[in-house]
Amino acid sequence: MFDPAATRALFDLPDGIVYLDGNSLGPLPRAAGARAREMIAEEWGLDLIRGWTSRGWIDLPGRVGDRIGALIGAPAGSVTVGETLSVRLFQALSAALAARPDRRIVLTDSGNFPSDLYIAQGLIRALDRGHELRVVDPETVADHLGEEVAVVMLTQVDYRTGRRHDLDRLTAQARAAGALAVWDLAHSAGAFPVDVAGAGADFAVGCTYKYLNGGPGAPAFIYTAPGRAAKTLPAITGWLGHADPFAFASDYRPAAGARGLRIGTPPVLALSVLDAALDVWGGVDLAAIRAASLRFGDLLIARVEAACPEVALASPRDGASRGSHVSFRHPEGYAVMQALIARGVIGDFRAPDLMRFGIAPLYVTQKDIHAAADALAEVLATRAWDRPEFRQRKTVT
Amino acid sequence: MFDPAATRALFDLPDGIVYLDGNSLGPLPRAAGARAREMIAEEWGLDLIRGWTSRGWIDLPGRVGDRIGALIGAPAGSVTVGETLSVRLFQALSAALAARPDRRIVLTDSGNFPSDLYIAQGLIRALDRGHELRVVDPETVADHLGEEVAVVMLTQVDYRTGRRHDLDRLTAQARAAGALAVWDLAHSAGAFPVDVAGAGADFAVGCTYKYLNGGPGAPAFIYTAPGRAAKTLPAITGWLGHADPFAFASDYRPAAGARGLRIGTPPVLALSVLDAALDVWGGVDLAAIRAASLRFGDLLIARVEAACPEVALASPRDGASRGSHVSFRHPEGYAVMQALIARGVIGDFRAPDLMRFGIAPLYVTQKDIHAAADALAEVLATRAWDRPEFRQRKTVT
Repeated sequence: MFDPAATRALFDLPDGIVYLDGNSLGPLPRAAGARAREMIAEEWGLDLIRGWTSRGWIDLPGRVGDRIGALIGAPAGSVTVGETLSVRLFQALSAALAARPDRRIVLTDSGNFPSDLYIAQGLIRALDRGHELRVVDPETVADHLGEEVAVVMLTQVDYRTGRRHDLDRLTAQARAAGALAVWDLAHSAGAFPVDVAGAGADFAVGCTYKYLNGGPGAPAFIYTAPGRAAKTLPAITGWLGHADPFAFASDYRPAAGARGLRIGTPPVLALSVLDAALDVWGGVDLAAIRAASLRFGDLLIARVEAACPEVALASPRDGASRGSHVSFRHPEGYAVMQALIARGVIGDFRAPDLMRFGIAPLYVTQKDIHAAADALAEVLATRAWDRPEFRQRKTVT
Repeated sequence: MFDPAATRALFDLPDGIVYLDGNSLGPLPRAAGARAREMIAEEWGLDLIRGWTSRGWIDLPGRVGDRIGALIGAPAGSVTVGETLSVRLFQALSAALAARPDRRIVLTDSGNFPSDLYIAQGLIRALDRGHELRVVDPETVADHLGEEVAVVMLTQVDYRTGRRHDLDRLTAQARAAGALAVWDLAHSAGAFPVDVAGAGADFAVGCTYKYLNGGPGAPAFIYTAPGRAAKTLPAITGWLGHADPFAFASDYRPAAGARGLRIGTPPVLALSVLDAALDVWGGVDLAAIRAASLRFGDLLIARVEAACPEVALASPRDGASRGSHVSFRHPEGYAVMQALIARGVIGDFRAPDLMRFGIAPLYVTQKDIHAAADALAEVLATRAWDRPEFRQRKTVT
């Protein structure tokens, strides 16, 4: 179980804000500021270079990785943290392709992040060995698992609709077909229980600025199935992934486990803040978080469908097939969302017409769901969105 | 010119410390803590997801990049910041090799960082097209510039000896031989004047935690010669390097200039702290920094050679051939350095026998140089290093 009032109190949420965008950027955990201050003033300021050992900076990627591992079913030593999600995906995909040199297809779906497609496109272009990125409908991934598929590369939750893949089933099917399974858990980690090791995934990657509340641009994580990394080298073989980095040998030799996937110098400040952000998970049962998220999602769908006939549900109605956000379509979705934000209800928009509402029960309450539904109904009923300042597009992530 | 007392006052240096390790980790700029606090409490805490536009987070890589560009002779728009140095080098090297598909040799020298060699080894292994990493003596790089050399990949300053390459001359020679020039400026940026654009370098990369004082694991920078990035794609093609990232198109299309080399979501907290750290360069003339560094280096060499016959100078005696640190050899260099650190004189050690002293005149004074030389002489004369706690090796970076 978890105590919603207690976990919400661990965040520094502005007054008057209903925050339903934790699927894009988690809010500020109260512990983050103090941890940053301590790291800067005491660790960096006083210990200077000695902090790498005296403060254990050098071990932060593994220490924080183990904490994230506990949320995704990964054993100790199988997750490391640092770099960005795109780099981690590149690393995972390159290692997976190296493990299946006889096959040429990277299978993914049209619900994947464009960013993930770009990474695969770049790697395939660079390798120049006739690989193909095959993009299929999300519902048909298993049907395309043929003998040429080297890697199945999927994001579990569609960032637009919230449609959620059955990670266990697809991983088993991929492996049965002789392919490796690489999962992007950007919208999974911290949103609901995941068991990457139990499912038999080969690699998993994810960001920490969404449901893990690490802050904007917080470092990414990568999971590797125990025993794999040492056998299959990624294209990026970084200094800190060396078995003995401080020997400064001329030739690369990988460390075992996730350690072998380290690349550059760890981002100590960002990792320290993320470490503090992960404190909120102490005693929290992800199954209870998931149950609350589905309850709130169902409630939001019911309230919006009852009050707002002009919007259409874009997410699966069945909670089991949904991640932790709910999306609705409206032709003027961008302006509608701006009008909501102006009223203190913060969700976000994805082209061409999707309004997204992220539900993170660590800090989102049932009252927030009612407030959001009421605000949406009012904005639509009064056409409050139909103002130039709401219709003019700005760049957002 | 610069006013040494004024710039030193911009750093929060612990009392009683002589800090000669800014070549590994720069000390804490006073402005960093307040900037981190502001970014966390006000920007992230209050603006939440809106900070990407309201606080200009999305533009930080270019804004901070332009500030670094001013220190390395790079025009506006040709430098971006984020990711780690290893990833940036991978990006640069892969793009450079793509620009010379007919050639197979990556030429580097034995004075390069092992981390840079690992990156080249990993890329070459992944490409599997018969590329060769040719490692030659630093003095003979130009002699190896034949018709098969695709890329000359060098670190300007040898992290061990401080030996400094003539960047302008080698870049011109590389280009005359039809090769691309990729420079690692880890020990150059902020240490002395560099003119990457004037020299005609194709790519340059560097870290910001040494002479730029961005903090442990601060993000890396990459420079691309104007006009190049759009033509030659690196192997990592990241979301934010897309010409229109927020259109979420399925196919990658690079932005022009350094923008096209962006990869993942910018590390906002680290970039904000780095931005504050760069404030110390206002009004500072790098030529004056360089002159002071050479004067202090010459003084340290003279004092140590006069008082410590058992150490041998490992750095070039001629300042023009030296970066901004001075190294000495001693068979018990590790223990000697630990004894110095215990006395508050912080340099560092590199296997097998090198004691390094970094000289950053932003905050290092002539008095510091005398204190370091005195301490070294005393440690050696009294064999103060010959104690178990100094001889037992710990991991340091």
